[in-house]
Amino acid sequence: MSKSTLIEKLNWRYATKKMDPAKSVPQEKVDQIIEAIRMAPTSSGTQPFEVFVITNPEIRAQIRPHAWDQAQITDGSHLLVFAAWDNYSEDRIDSVTRQMTEERGEIPMLNQYYDNLKATYLPREARTNHDHAARQAYIALGFALAAAAELEVDSTPMEGFTPEKIDEILGLKDKGLRSVLLLPLGYRAEEGDWLLPMKKVRKSRDTIVTEIA
Amino acid sequence: MSKSTLIEKLNWRYATKKMDPAKSVPQEKVDQIIEAIRMAPTSSGTQPFEVFVITNPEIRAQIRPHAWDQAQITDGSHLLVFAAWDNYSEDRIDSVTRQMTEERGEIPMLNQYYDNLKATYLPREARTNHDHAARQAYIALGFALAAAAELEVDSTPMEGFTPEKIDEILGLKDKGLRSVLLLPLGYRAEEGDWLLPMKKVRKSRDTIVTEIA
Repeated sequence: MSKSTLIEKLNWRYATKKMDPAKSVPQEKVDQIIEAIRMAPTSSGTQPFEVFVITNPEIRAQIRPHAWDQAQITDGSHLLVFAAWDNYSEDRIDSVTRQMTEERGEIPMLNQYYDNLKATYLPREARTNHDHAARQAYIALGFALAAAAELEVDSTPMEGFTPEKIDEILGLKDKGLRSVLLLPLGYRAEEGDWLLPMKKVRKSRDTIVTEIA
Repeated sequence: MSKSTLIEKLNWRYATKKMDPAKSVPQEKVDQIIEAIRMAPTSSGTQPFEVFVITNPEIRAQIRPHAWDQAQITDGSHLLVFAAWDNYSEDRIDSVTRQMTEERGEIPMLNQYYDNLKATYLPREARTNHDHAARQAYIALGFALAAAAELEVDSTPMEGFTPEKIDEILGLKDKGLRSVLLLPLGYRAEEGDWLLPMKKVRKSRDTIVTEIA
């Protein structure tokens, strides 16, 4: 079997440190990255996050100082902000059940399933529920990174920022959302990226994998 | 531009509910899925999780009752268990820095970076650090799902299990690990999967994406 194309692309990608501000990612590629995010599986199908796709230069300039002043935020052409639900709620879960019923027809098992889910989630602390929602956004981040790599679009996943500031800039609190990940998209600069010439470092397979046969 | 191959595959995949116990995923495909996991980016490159690849039928039979008795765990040919670090530690971070130095050479900035990381992580609660490590495993899960889809291997991501029981069966506590995700791999059964004939349900793009131009 030939080597997987995806794995070649996953080797090609890296957390781009310097993007070329003169280059812009075509909308059709951004659309495909968004589609990969939309397709990502999530716990019980709740898709408990939203994505903000920011091209506006002023907004990106406002965000940058709250993310260690990382230049990719303004040098890239698009900034994706993943914002997870601050909590699960009856309305949010009911809206998932409603869409499923509309698209798949009435299934009694389905209503029972989501009633049980509400009984589990709703009494829990908001922090626990937000953490759980945030984890789902990380699966979608994985899909976004894979899709970007396939399309040879550069990207830089970022956790290092002050969520409260980003939430304030984007008005997320009123929407019941909290920012969890930033993902600038763009193209690597020919020069000035200290990481580009360096070897990709990953633990050996033996270090992270145990086979139990 | 033609439609992304990856997106077609992400549409093809679904959380398989019934796997054919007579079919086994070839080792070379499992290897590629593992390679995608190994390539997944993680915060500060720590790769703070391990993966257990279980083909042993007895061990999988022991695990199954602690995961809602889901049949894919034993009907699939391989069960992947993602186990995140229970906490960050000086040793764990030093080992990351050591490998980077070995592979990239001595970089003073690098040591400073990881010293700062230790100053941030080590005083934090174990729960906070484990949550952070677990999120990284979710990025890798995204890569695993994408790689499996590319190879037309079926998979079922699972969060619904009792981690303490799985940790006990695999002896994870002594390794400073906690199970966070299960991923059976196999092939969908021709019959008996209630989800297979159903429409894939995802929120509309407008529901989850906001463009700020």
